[in-house]
Amino acid sequence: MSVSETDDPIILSPGPVATAPEVKRAMLRDMTPNQPELLELTAFIRRRLVELANGGDDYVCVPVQGVGNTANEAVLGSLVRRERTLLVVNNGFYGARLKEIATAIGLAVKSLDLPITLPVDPADVAAALAADPAIGHVVICQVDTGTGLMNPVDAIAGVVRGRGVGLIVDAIASFGGLPLDAGTLDAEAIVLSPNKWLEGLPGLGLTIVQRSALETAAGRSHSYVLDLHRQWQSFERGFWRFTPPVQSIAALAAALRIYETEGRAARFARIEANWRTLVDGLRAQGFETLIEDEVAAPVIATFHEPADRNYSREAFFTAMRGHGFTIFRGCLTDAPTFRIGCMGAFGPATMARVVEAVRRSMAAMGVADGSPRRGVEAAE
Amino acid sequence: MSVSETDDPIILSPGPVATAPEVKRAMLRDMTPNQPELLELTAFIRRRLVELANGGDDYVCVPVQGVGNTANEAVLGSLVRRERTLLVVNNGFYGARLKEIATAIGLAVKSLDLPITLPVDPADVAAALAADPAIGHVVICQVDTGTGLMNPVDAIAGVVRGRGVGLIVDAIASFGGLPLDAGTLDAEAIVLSPNKWLEGLPGLGLTIVQRSALETAAGRSHSYVLDLHRQWQSFERGFWRFTPPVQSIAALAAALRIYETEGRAARFARIEANWRTLVDGLRAQGFETLIEDEVAAPVIATFHEPADRNYSREAFFTAMRGHGFTIFRGCLTDAPTFRIGCMGAFGPATMARVVEAVRRSMAAMGVADGSPRRGVEAAE
Repeated sequence: MSVSETDDPIILSPGPVATAPEVKRAMLRDMTPNQPELLELTAFIRRRLVELANGGDDYVCVPVQGVGNTANEAVLGSLVRRERTLLVVNNGFYGARLKEIATAIGLAVKSLDLPITLPVDPADVAAALAADPAIGHVVICQVDTGTGLMNPVDAIAGVVRGRGVGLIVDAIASFGGLPLDAGTLDAEAIVLSPNKWLEGLPGLGLTIVQRSALETAAGRSHSYVLDLHRQWQSFERGFWRFTPPVQSIAALAAALRIYETEGRAARFARIEANWRTLVDGLRAQGFETLIEDEVAAPVIATFHEPADRNYSREAFFTAMRGHGFTIFRGCLTDAPTFRIGCMGAFGPATMARVVEAVRRSMAAMGVADGSPRRGVEAAE
Repeated sequence: MSVSETDDPIILSPGPVATAPEVKRAMLRDMTPNQPELLELTAFIRRRLVELANGGDDYVCVPVQGVGNTANEAVLGSLVRRERTLLVVNNGFYGARLKEIATAIGLAVKSLDLPITLPVDPADVAAALAADPAIGHVVICQVDTGTGLMNPVDAIAGVVRGRGVGLIVDAIASFGGLPLDAGTLDAEAIVLSPNKWLEGLPGLGLTIVQRSALETAAGRSHSYVLDLHRQWQSFERGFWRFTPPVQSIAALAAALRIYETEGRAARFARIEANWRTLVDGLRAQGFETLIEDEVAAPVIATFHEPADRNYSREAFFTAMRGHGFTIFRGCLTDAPTFRIGCMGAFGPATMARVVEAVRRSMAAMGVADGSPRRGVEAAE
């Protein structure tokens, strides 16, 4: 599968991911917000995403101009009842972000602050709900984009259901790859991204929301632009509320057509093969992953940095660029780690070249093997 | 000047506008948020926009993920002091929008509600300020994207200056075309768009803000995502705060390079020639404009619909499409009007074809001439 028509490095990011040439080429058009072609592309995207979520007639897709964080703030600000409390499951970078957003916009927030290396235990959520009847919503990341940690969203939904508590799922790093069934979850809202598993380009935040939740959301939002009810009402009238990111819409429509041809199971299998190739290959070089395989989604792998004193984070980034790969630059965790993204329009043959590029980059730095400092994992 | 490499109609919109092929082609790249090329493009854009505003060291460009409305809400929510009142000059669709945004986010708002066909009189602003010392900020559109009406921003700035009142200019429909000097205006913030005079593509809202205003804005915003202070702080550290619209950034950088080659005066002259060609050409067919030429910016022209009973808004739109032009679909004003945008990567020769296409579209509908119903202007 060819990713690029240029000499640009292949990006190995947890999103935006490398995209197919036809996705990028779909952007080569000027369109006005109200012209029929754009409205048709918009309708196609909105319909198809609800279908992918198995949302049926109970759900509606409401895109927002912006990114995943924009969509998360729009959902929290528009759906969470102000007289109740929001419970945030915080066991990753994006759980922490959800807590930060909710607090900043003035919601009453409680959080389950947990280690970033372990999935939340549904019993902990059940206990939190039992302890505080003021909790009206629970928000949880299905997969943390920072670490790849998977949370058991189905089990959490089982705990939430039947209590009059709304469930909001941040599926930004999972939608289109991991199974997600809006109707079974009875989720009030699902937030997703065009530029991760779906292999589209950035510029849009996407939400799939229960129609009944939208119907009671009028006048609730703290924001005008991020008011999901007004945004939805405009789509109901057939139009974008503000200037849409025309080219991102065209790219997502092209990406969804490719996605349909490949199918969810095959898409998942390809990305999982990427991840398996990467993790096995780097372990053979002595590297160790931050989280256990059993709880890792194959979106990204986070590795402890080698103990070898010759290792330099910046030199590693630069050496990988020299081999034709752009990896994530920087470190998110307290413990020193590096991350390599596994999603994107490429397969395991490319990932095998990544593994070899890591080997050669380490060799060039004079790093003998990838073994981390002892005690690093305990310190995390 | 060639606009399109495809058979797509040329868009005659007040934004997004038709763009040059090299602007669209700049989007054909995958980049990660933190990779050096994207950070360089971002730095180039931010520096160049401050230079275009003649902002010097006192100003800084803070892009936001989203569109012009996003940037307007970010500016209002982040800069307006909550213990004071915001005065909104409301004499157009976007003045009304600013009032709607400010009210929705809970600011204390007063507005000068004026006809949409006349520029605001600076004396009215002076009187409003004198009558209410609680007013801490004034926000005004330099040009209304809906009608093309120009407000005398320099004179308004003169009235505001020296009172301890902050000036916010919505320059979305004017920046890059009409003269605007941040330093002379002493504006606290200027909001602009990549996809109007600058002939870039949508996906970004752009703000140019006084550094001193940002420094005192910590913790003020009603929003997390639209918090301009946090956004600015992230840029100060060298990075985008959230996933940026990578392709829109690349497109804007390419558009700015074209803009520099053409120059502001020549860009303005070309668009003004488009507007002149359109207005003269349609007047020769009997059409009348909504606003007087003296107060019209050449971004768009709004014409009264013909009185002839054979005229149909939808048939006109469709006929123009058949001639290769997408015009604005729908009507914004209470009086029945249609609008044709004049900005974009084309010149007066193309606009002469638009005039001829209007003539042929009217002839095909059986509309004898463009004269509007009598009394329409009085009713507006």
